[in-house]
Amino acid sequence: MYLDELTTTEFKERIDSKTMVIWPIGAVEEHGPHLPLSTDSLQPEHIAERVAERTGALIAPPLRYGYLRQTAPFPGSISLRWDTLRSIALDILMGLAKNDVRYIVVLSGHAGRDHMSALRLAALDVVDSHDVRIWVMSDYDIAYAHMDELASQDDGHAGTIETSRIMNIRPDLVKERPGPFQPDWPRFEMLAEPREYFPDGYHGDPSAADVEKARRIDDIIVEEMVRFITEAVDRGAGE
Amino acid sequence: MYLDELTTTEFKERIDSKTMVIWPIGAVEEHGPHLPLSTDSLQPEHIAERVAERTGALIAPPLRYGYLRQTAPFPGSISLRWDTLRSIALDILMGLAKNDVRYIVVLSGHAGRDHMSALRLAALDVVDSHDVRIWVMSDYDIAYAHMDELASQDDGHAGTIETSRIMNIRPDLVKERPGPFQPDWPRFEMLAEPREYFPDGYHGDPSAADVEKARRIDDIIVEEMVRFITEAVDRGAGE
Amino acid sequence: MYLDELTTTEFKERIDSKTMVIWPIGAVEEHGPHLPLSTDSLQPEHIAERVAERTGALIAPPLRYGYLRQTAPFPGSISLRWDTLRSIALDILMGLAKNDVRYIVVLSGHAGRDHMSALRLAALDVVDSHDVRIWVMSDYDIAYAHMDELASQDDGHAGTIETSRIMNIRPDLVKERPGPFQPDWPRFEMLAEPREYFPDGYHGDPSAADVEKARRIDDIIVEEMVRFITEAVDRGAGE
Amino acid sequence: MYLDELTTTEFKERIDSKTMVIWPIGAVEEHGPHLPLSTDSLQPEHIAERVAERTGALIAPPLRYGYLRQTAPFPGSISLRWDTLRSIALDILMGLAKNDVRYIVVLSGHAGRDHMSALRLAALDVVDSHDVRIWVMSDYDIAYAHMDELASQDDGHAGTIETSRIMNIRPDLVKERPGPFQPDWPRFEMLAEPREYFPDGYHGDPSAADVEKARRIDDIIVEEMVRFITEAVDRGAGE
Amino acid sequence: MYLDELTTTEFKERIDSKTMVIWPIGAVEEHGPHLPLSTDSLQPEHIAERVAERTGALIAPPLRYGYLRQTAPFPGSISLRWDTLRSIALDILMGLAKNDVRYIVVLSGHAGRDHMSALRLAALDVVDSHDVRIWVMSDYDIAYAHMDELASQDDGHAGTIETSRIMNIRPDLVKERPGPFQPDWPRFEMLAEPREYFPDGYHGDPSAADVEKARRIDDIIVEEMVRFITEAVDRGAGE
Amino acid sequence: MYLDELTTTEFKERIDSKTMVIWPIGAVEEHGPHLPLSTDSLQPEHIAERVAERTGALIAPPLRYGYLRQTAPFPGSISLRWDTLRSIALDILMGLAKNDVRYIVVLSGHAGRDHMSALRLAALDVVDSHDVRIWVMSDYDIAYAHMDELASQDDGHAGTIETSRIMNIRPDLVKERPGPFQPDWPRFEMLAEPREYFPDGYHGDPSAADVEKARRIDDIIVEEMVRFITEAVDRGAGE
Repeated sequence: MYLDELTTTEFKERIDSKTMVIWPIGAVEEHGPHLPLSTDSLQPEHIAERVAERTGALIAPPLRYGYLRQTAPFPGSISLRWDTLRSIALDILMGLAKNDVRYIVVLSGHAGRDHMSALRLAALDVVDSHDVRIWVMSDYDIAYAHMDELASQDDGHAGTIETSRIMNIRPDLVKERPGPFQPDWPRFEMLAEPREYFPDGYHGDPSAADVEKARRIDDIIVEEMVRFITEAVDRGAGE
Repeated sequence: MYLDELTTTEFKERIDSKTMVIWPIGAVEEHGPHLPLSTDSLQPEHIAERVAERTGALIAPPLRYGYLRQTAPFPGSISLRWDTLRSIALDILMGLAKNDVRYIVVLSGHAGRDHMSALRLAALDVVDSHDVRIWVMSDYDIAYAHMDELASQDDGHAGTIETSRIMNIRPDLVKERPGPFQPDWPRFEMLAEPREYFPDGYHGDPSAADVEKARRIDDIIVEEMVRFITEAVDRGAGE
Repeated sequence: MYLDELTTTEFKERIDSKTMVIWPIGAVEEHGPHLPLSTDSLQPEHIAERVAERTGALIAPPLRYGYLRQTAPFPGSISLRWDTLRSIALDILMGLAKNDVRYIVVLSGHAGRDHMSALRLAALDVVDSHDVRIWVMSDYDIAYAHMDELASQDDGHAGTIETSRIMNIRPDLVKERPGPFQPDWPRFEMLAEPREYFPDGYHGDPSAADVEKARRIDDIIVEEMVRFITEAVDRGAGE
Repeated sequence: MYLDELTTTEFKERIDSKTMVIWPIGAVEEHGPHLPLSTDSLQPEHIAERVAERTGALIAPPLRYGYLRQTAPFPGSISLRWDTLRSIALDILMGLAKNDVRYIVVLSGHAGRDHMSALRLAALDVVDSHDVRIWVMSDYDIAYAHMDELASQDDGHAGTIETSRIMNIRPDLVKERPGPFQPDWPRFEMLAEPREYFPDGYHGDPSAADVEKARRIDDIIVEEMVRFITEAVDRGAGE
Repeated sequence: MYLDELTTTEFKERIDSKTMVIWPIGAVEEHGPHLPLSTDSLQPEHIAERVAERTGALIAPPLRYGYLRQTAPFPGSISLRWDTLRSIALDILMGLAKNDVRYIVVLSGHAGRDHMSALRLAALDVVDSHDVRIWVMSDYDIAYAHMDELASQDDGHAGTIETSRIMNIRPDLVKERPGPFQPDWPRFEMLAEPREYFPDGYHGDPSAADVEKARRIDDIIVEEMVRFITEAVDRGAGE
Repeated sequence: MYLDELTTTEFKERIDSKTMVIWPIGAVEEHGPHLPLSTDSLQPEHIAERVAERTGALIAPPLRYGYLRQTAPFPGSISLRWDTLRSIALDILMGLAKNDVRYIVVLSGHAGRDHMSALRLAALDVVDSHDVRIWVMSDYDIAYAHMDELASQDDGHAGTIETSRIMNIRPDLVKERPGPFQPDWPRFEMLAEPREYFPDGYHGDPSAADVEKARRIDDIIVEEMVRFITEAVDRGAGE
């Protein structure tokens, strides 16, 4: 399932015009007093494994580092510079394209706007120069579209949904869950010190999390991904 | 043991002036017809876990991508550009230094000369600007010093020692082992097409590998690392 | 009103701890068969002038170039590379900060996600190093929040609202307006050839545009901007 | 006349193998106590409009920012970094070339040596890779060749000629004109603090300025530009 | 006389607050059928040695590579990229400044406008950050001011003066000298193929060269340089 | 013998499919109290001249600047940034390749690991894009292979061999030679202050140097270089 468990010989035999590769990206990022720094890594890796099982996709070695903004000043957060993230995404996508992989899903557990921009810009350089199709998404792009069913409208970073999902994947890493907190983010302003707006580093209601919610949202994400991957591969690359 | 299994709160409590962090780096790299593309990732991660157990060091999320040269054209190899590797190493080391980590071992399973240069240059920028000590090494820097005891003088990429070590760590990933091969590398020349010099992508004698050799070499590496980590932390940072 | 109409002496006298500067950014970008390439420039310049009149803000010379994606291949579109946009935004914001301007609104008529990322990343570098507050926004961030009142849910690039606004600002530049078109954008995919999804380069219903809608939306935008500018300046910089 | 007043459809119809585009570049730059910061923007925009009227050339949206040296420390000056100027010039010229424009005049009101180098280097990259001809010039390259007729030999920044020209274009922006000043620039030296050599930020005799001089010099510039544009387009691109 | 003939100990003793270092820069550049590719290197090295003898200045190891434009396509020309030239100039000037050298003359035999810009921009970064004074000049900045006395107004690349000077320095490297040639350079245009305007790669009249002219111009250059170096060092750095 | 002593015409006639160019690279680097800063420049230039005499190779103008690490903080050392070294090496090698040179030896007197990486990475970019063969080596790559015959195992920077060689090439630049010193370098550590480990900036035994050793080692280096150059050129480029 993991691409790098193959030998060079096996890899060559395995790749054909219908091979899909999923590349999970996470972060080392503060997630409140209750969730591990690996929260954004665990979720897309978990989804990637489930989707790979269903579709036969290969998983490229995950990158567990991303670009952080509001959470960067908290202890334990390690942010790449934005340009570094774009560079490494470009190299890995180029490396896959040169290896004749024609379908790639970049699946990021971290969904920061500028983090996602770095991934999109890298992917564009690859689709512009190679016969390859690339999807850049966060599992949260799907999750937030189903927010109403699962959490309050204002759920966010390390909130109900995220806490639920980590409770499902690695319950041993979830510590005492705090109650609801709603930050009052100033609109449009670039903040030199974001911590003053959410001193405990979360947004939403961790105490409302439960494993059942995680299962429902993960099922939805997996179903959507399996569907568009299957359709894309069936239609054929570059068409 | 893994740094990103901690919450931000736990991380803050855990880091003190004696904390050592080990950051394993690998590669997605062809390793002959018999070893997986993850060969250079598996070895330093295995060593890091053993050293962490012994010393209480934390392990930063591994990077499973490196800079490749002679092996880059083989199927399945994914190389970062050299500058990307230096950038990401700089960011992660800076991120650790800003988080008050004062001792860092960069442990690379891939030992290519220019790959190691990228890591060293990144580390130098960090020690020049922060009160931190950084060691940049490959487990093979130690392994090759004990070559005589374990393999022929000419053992190399995917040869006796490397095959032995993967047989020990992930025997399920080792496929049929070929016999000895000695490439006749031209001295000093920068090769546009290195594959012609080792068409099967290995160097040395995989057929002479055995688990016992792996255990001996791993014990030596772990002992040396435990020793210098312990001594360094005892002496104190920046002294 | 325009900053560069002042002499150096006048400028020095004019800047104090409460001076707000608005910097309008546009684009040279295809906007359907009916709107001029300057569409995204005209709108923020119009808003900036109205807000400046009300608040006494200065306007920095507009930049009429931005970063384009889906519209880049159409005739007449001129896109900056993403890095160029970030660089020029950084330089201009730094130049204002060094000139003791403490409040800056970056007002972009073009609202592409990655275009906005470039502006945000530039602004962050400035707020991290100078005692200055910067807001990065598109007038469409406000406009789309009031979409329901003014246009169909699916209005977009060169659609009802944008057409209305240009009819209001420069009616001479609006040509025969086509009827509604809804592109079926594939989710998440980075497109090598976006034109196939909206061959006429617009999205929404230009035929439903009218000047009255423009006046209403512009009033809303101006009011919101005047309010947050006034509040910010009253509170004082850096607080 | 302005390129971005066209729709994409109009633009496509308008561009043919004889289309000339003029791109005016200015600066936000101190110009003594009497001239506005926009002095270097107003002049080439004025010339471009007159030349466009005579030749049918299109005008690309002006850039009102440049690279400054000796004037950078004065209040109100906003300098781009040199690399930013080269980057944006490259992008805009590339954007025009990709849009099948075959003749481009880069007309800079600011004539600093290193500012002009940035424009030339950008233009060279475009002529080396596209079938396009590019002229990089300042209106002052022509003006200074006629200096003897119009001003003293030592006229310079914000001096007689420049003051005359702004009195002609925007008399409302010209403030009380000081008398003659001749800086004693040290030869060859790169100055960390240039203000000590011309504390009031001008060079020459603003009090000798008059509108008639402006009309004569502008006529000369327009005539020369019309002539070489007409000749170039008549001969055909790339020949 | 050459800085790098000293040991580290001697260097340390030798540098004081009045030490001047001259750094000669040349090029590997076509100079007509009669002059060597090293023409622009030989001249400033010759001048530097004469000035050093008179003033006690040290000479930093010359750089015999520069940035070329019109001459780049001719056989034997080797051009640095513009950015490389700026980078190496920055590093060497920074290296001198960090070594407590307070006066530096960058003396370039090649006098191309953009080549000189690279040197100036590098020098500015150093004077902005260190207590050092730097002069950036070409010996031709002085030579051309005395053109009338020595050659025709239109003398240029590999013409009368330059040929005379190489006849003086390295007569063995001067080959059969061609007669006068005056290129008809198009004004302002950035040329994709400059060779068509001076097919033999020179400009002026090599046949009018003689050693006596070289001695006169070299004397003038040396005198001017000795004078401003002496004056500068007498006044003291940073004043 | 030196490439830049030729005119463009001579150069064009001289280059054919068997021309070898040697490019010597040195450094301005501390070499103990007894050797000049030019030590690493003198050696490869001397070797290059001897090899050129024997083989008819041309010598490209030497670069007397390199990338330094442990020796950078000593007086007189001038280090390029690593990226600058790679850039200039790339430009010069590209310049030679574009001039139809098909065999190039990059011969570096300085043998620092990361310095050599910069040269190798530059060379790789050229062999990947042009039909050229490039060898990147230090004369010390050969010298150290013969260490046993000539010096103690622990000879190093400014030690017995290096001192001997400078005594042979420029005896006038060798000052009083100190006795043996063996630094105790910490393994793997990136040092912020390397001087504490070898306070006098040398490693080995300068007092054991003699000219006879220099002659033997230089003969060995020259023979090896002549042999591989002759063989390479005989076999033909690109084969």
